[in-house]
Parts: sequence; structure tokens; C-alpha cells
Amino acid sequence: MIPAPYLLYLGSTADPLSIKTSRGVALFRAEDCVGEFRHDASPQTLGLPRMTMAQGAAAGARTLILGIAGAGGALTEELIADAADALENGLNVASGLHNRLRDQPRLAELARERGLNLFDVRDPPAGLAVGTGLPRAGNRLLTVGTDCSVGKMVTTLALEREMRARGIAATFRATGQTGILIAGAGVAVDAVVADFISGAIEQLAPARKDDGWDLIEGQGSLFHPSFAGVSLGLLHGAQPTALVLCHEPGRPHLRGLPHRAVSDLAECLHANLEAARLTSPDVVAAGICLNTQGLERAEARRLCDATAARFNLPCTDPLAFGTAPIIDHLCPAH
Amino acid sequence: MIPAPYLLYLGSTADPLSIKTSRGVALFRAEDCVGEFRHDASPQTLGLPRMTMAQGAAAGARTLILGIAGAGGALTEELIADAADALENGLNVASGLHNRLRDQPRLAELARERGLNLFDVRDPPAGLAVGTGLPRAGNRLLTVGTDCSVGKMVTTLALEREMRARGIAATFRATGQTGILIAGAGVAVDAVVADFISGAIEQLAPARKDDGWDLIEGQGSLFHPSFAGVSLGLLHGAQPTALVLCHEPGRPHLRGLPHRAVSDLAECLHANLEAARLTSPDVVAAGICLNTQGLERAEARRLCDATAARFNLPCTDPLAFGTAPIIDHLCPAH
Repeated sequence: MIPAPYLLYLGSTADPLSIKTSRGVALFRAEDCVGEFRHDASPQTLGLPRMTMAQGAAAGARTLILGIAGAGGALTEELIADAADALENGLNVASGLHNRLRDQPRLAELARERGLNLFDVRDPPAGLAVGTGLPRAGNRLLTVGTDCSVGKMVTTLALEREMRARGIAATFRATGQTGILIAGAGVAVDAVVADFISGAIEQLAPARKDDGWDLIEGQGSLFHPSFAGVSLGLLHGAQPTALVLCHEPGRPHLRGLPHRAVSDLAECLHANLEAARLTSPDVVAAGICLNTQGLERAEARRLCDATAARFNLPCTDPLAFGTAPIIDHLCPAH
Repeated sequence: MIPAPYLLYLGSTADPLSIKTSRGVALFRAEDCVGEFRHDASPQTLGLPRMTMAQGAAAGARTLILGIAGAGGALTEELIADAADALENGLNVASGLHNRLRDQPRLAELARERGLNLFDVRDPPAGLAVGTGLPRAGNRLLTVGTDCSVGKMVTTLALEREMRARGIAATFRATGQTGILIAGAGVAVDAVVADFISGAIEQLAPARKDDGWDLIEGQGSLFHPSFAGVSLGLLHGAQPTALVLCHEPGRPHLRGLPHRAVSDLAECLHANLEAARLTSPDVVAAGICLNTQGLERAEARRLCDATAARFNLPCTDPLAFGTAPIIDHLCPAH
């Protein structure tokens, strides 16, 4: 496993969506984070002490989490230079980018020289099989979204926390780099060879015989032209009993695509339920989660209530208001 | 490029769908095929002279086309042994299986020793980018299907042939192993990393400024739980002006999935048009192609006519009756 504690990388980007991996680790593995590394150009912070690589190492960090991501997950020159800096200061480096750390000769050589490790968490597992769509036992919930980076992972983790607090057996199933770094296991479904998308998820969330739940982190959106194939294969492989739709109100356009509006909530929920029925005929919608970070609290509350009334489903912001309404609805006996 | 002429491999399978790559090369590159290799267990033939590897080499073959595929594209022990036999007899080996020839130490070593080449045509191109869904110029037709292996490639090639015969500029864009072996270029979209499905197709069929057509080979089906993610990403990346729906009447169940019925033609056409509108709002259905190989000719004719009447679209079997009705409909000026 990836040695903790961590120094979290923010780089020099001003885009809050680009640092979602570092932010996710800071939120859900707070006890393992000693500081953040950022360039002067970065206006962003996770509220952790700002440290150079040397300071991070001195503070006890064992791994730099290269927790940033643009669309496509490219490894830029700046990222390579900063990863080299980390290695030179005795830190391992973990990344979820498509371009692998180990394929960079400079980083591979530095790691070898210093006896350090490079962790490419997007590496798919060996021996994947194509999906079958065969019915399998167990309760599975999948988060789906109107876009990338709207809060599917946070929602899934929050649902796991709430279920466990009520004594319900629940397992978060990570499908992206951040989730894998938080959970310590999972499959980066967008890095799998396309033929194996649904098969990878069938393997990640196999038949389950207890009354517990597999809570599967969704990816992308059926309405995102870059990634809809991943979203659909994930949906079919998940064979979900229940869907939770995630959305960020007020987002001006799809992530990475300024020419394209975010799809309507109702249309998106309908399309996901329709597509899910291919492998899970009795799938239901269990709720809607809004990421209201851009809104005042009272406004966020009003929006959740209005959305709940419109869809006749529980609606909440998992961070602001918790996920109790969804679990009340889904597991009324607990 | 892969040196012709070819010896086509049929192996020992009795499943006609498993040898579709060898059959496609025999059909569309007939001038380059000297013979077929099959084990005694195989009841199948492509109508070519049966040859051992040594006989194929003596007849002038330069490459064994390992043109068989089960779901998932695994390289079995028998296939490895037969590929080694080919190399020992001086033949190059080309394969479109997921498991790469070059990753088999025995084959890699034999090829090196003998100065021969292993061609893994499923290798995706380097430097793929994620799709953007941005509108791009040009006429593009995509074949979609109710299942895998229903005739999408054959239909696409037949449409190219008919367009060219009428003086319309037309380019077949291969997205699968067989198509790539026939066309000499293309992208095996099911072998691309999942994040890049639509981007790979945007790159394969870029903006086109003449009045000609890119004819894009479809893969899988939106209703096949193993591969629908590939089909959806391909559909979005293709940004098709027109769709042609392919179907094999009487198929008892989805390819590889005995528990699952083939979807209804109308439902399948509707779902493909709906999904295609995300990147191509004005997409139209241009026709339906039936693979009637299991039917009497008169029965096939009746079925095509009935289907045409039901959908108010041209319907034909491209091999039995040609694709003229579809081109008449799509390009009335030619």
C-alpha cells in the first residue's frame, strides 16, 4: 500500500475541479495529511500547512500525492519536475494520471536510485473479463451524474458513512483515482481497456449474499460526450438496485466543454434508469444529491426541498446536510 | 504494412461467428488469400484450399492471419502453438486478439530468431485525446446493430463500394480488427483505454471538407451488456449524419449471452438516434441492413420489403441484394 502520511499536491492551477483528488484525500483521509505543496501561482488551498517537498519530508510525509487532474490526465513538464523534486527529497510519489509515472525515465531512475516507489493507481487489474450482465445477488447503489466532478465520490462515501453509522454493512467501491487513494482499493474504470468496462465493475462489486450494500462510485455522465461510454459500461456492470443522481446547481457548462450545457436533471435521471434496466430491470431512484458549495446555506436548503418535491424523492447536499433522508428512504428498517 | 499474400486461420472452432475475421479478409481481400488452415475438428471452410503452415508457405503465403475471436479476444494455448508453427515455417503472424502476440515469449523469440514480424492490429495509436463533441464538418455514416457480429462491417464496406461505384468520394473507417486487416488502417476501438473511446473516433474520422462520406464501422450494440459502453462512445465520437441499423433476423440470443434476447429493431433504432443526438442533433436513419444468410432468398426478399414498409426506410441485405436502395435514399443526386 501507499505509505502515509501524505503531502498533497496542488501545483499551480486555479481550477478548483483540477485538484479534486488532493481535496478528496484531505477530506476523507484527513488524519494522514501533513501539508500541501503549491506554487506561488496557485490561489488555492486545502487549509493545510503549505510546505516545500523538503519541509513535507521533514514533517514526516512519506508520499507526495500528485492529486491533480485535467481532462485526459496528462503528465505535464511541471508535474514531472515537481515529482522529481519530491523523490530527491525522499518522498514516494503516487499519481492517478493516465500517463504513468513509471514511464518517465527521469522519475523511474530517481526512484530506483533512492529506493523509493512510484504508485500509478490508475493501473487496471490484470486478468479482466468482459461483462456478462448475468443477474447477481446483493444490494448495489450507484451514483450517477449530470456531469463529471459533481460530487459522485463524495456522495458515495457519505452514504457509506451513514449506512455504517446505522449498523448496515456497506462497502464503498472506488472507480476513480481519488476514490482508490482514499479506499486503498478499486478500479480506475476510465483506464480499463474499453472492451472490459462493464466486466471490470462486475468484478469490483461481485455477488453479495448478506443484506449489506455495495456503494459504487459513478464516473462521468451519460450526457458528457467525452466520457459517456465509460458511464454506460459502468452502469451496466454495476447492475444497480438503486441510483442516486448527483448534480451541481448553477454549473455553467459541462466540465471541459464550454460549448455544452449541463443536461436537465429529469432527463438525466430518466436516461440513467432506462439504460440501467438492461441489467437491472427493477432499478429505482433512491435520491438526488446536490453539490451546493456555491450557494448560501438557506438557498441550498430551499433548493434541496424544491428538488425533493419536484421528483418526489429525497434530496440533500451530503456535505452540508448529510445523507440521512436517502438512507431513511432506502433502508426504512434502520 | 502486413505482407500479403495470406494464409487464413480457422482453428478448430465450430462457431461461425468466431471466424468472422478470417471470413472478412477472404471476402474483401480475396485476391490476397492463398489458402485456409484448420484442424480436423473444424467443420468450417471459407472455400479456400486447405493447407498446413508448410504448404501455405510453399504456396507463397507470407503471413498467417490469426483471424478468429472469442468474446474478450483471449490467446489460447492452441492458438499460440499454431502461431509458433507458422513462424517455424517462415510466416509472419497477424492477430487482432486482445492478448498480444508479442507478449508471448515463445512467439517473440521465434519471430526474432527467424527475422519475422508479429502484427498486433488491436494496438491503439499513441497520443489519443479525449473526445470533445465539438461540431465538425463532413458527412459521416455509422453502422449500428442489435448485437455484435450482425454485419456492421460488411454493410459499411458494401456502402463504400456502392458509393464509389457512383463516383461519390467515400472512405471506410475501420474500428475493429477485421476491418483494420481489410483496410490496412483504423482503430480497434474496443482496445482503446476507456477514457478515449469517443476521442479515438473523432481522430479516426476527422472534419471532412469535400462532399464525400466517411463510412464508420460500428461495434457491439447499445443493448449488449458486455460492450454497450464502447458502442455509445463510438456513436458520440462518430457524430454521424446518418445511421444504418444492422440486424440478423432469427438470432436466438445476444452473442455470447444465452440468457439474453436480441433487442427489438424499433427500440434499438430509437435508442441509437436518441443517443446520437448528443453530438449530432440532426442525425437521421438512412436504412436497415439485414443479414439474411440463414434464410431462403425469397424469404429474405419478403423480410426486407416488410421491414422497409414497417419503418418507411430502405431495407436490404448488402450481400444478397446490394446497398443501392440506401444510397438512392441518402444521395438522391447520384
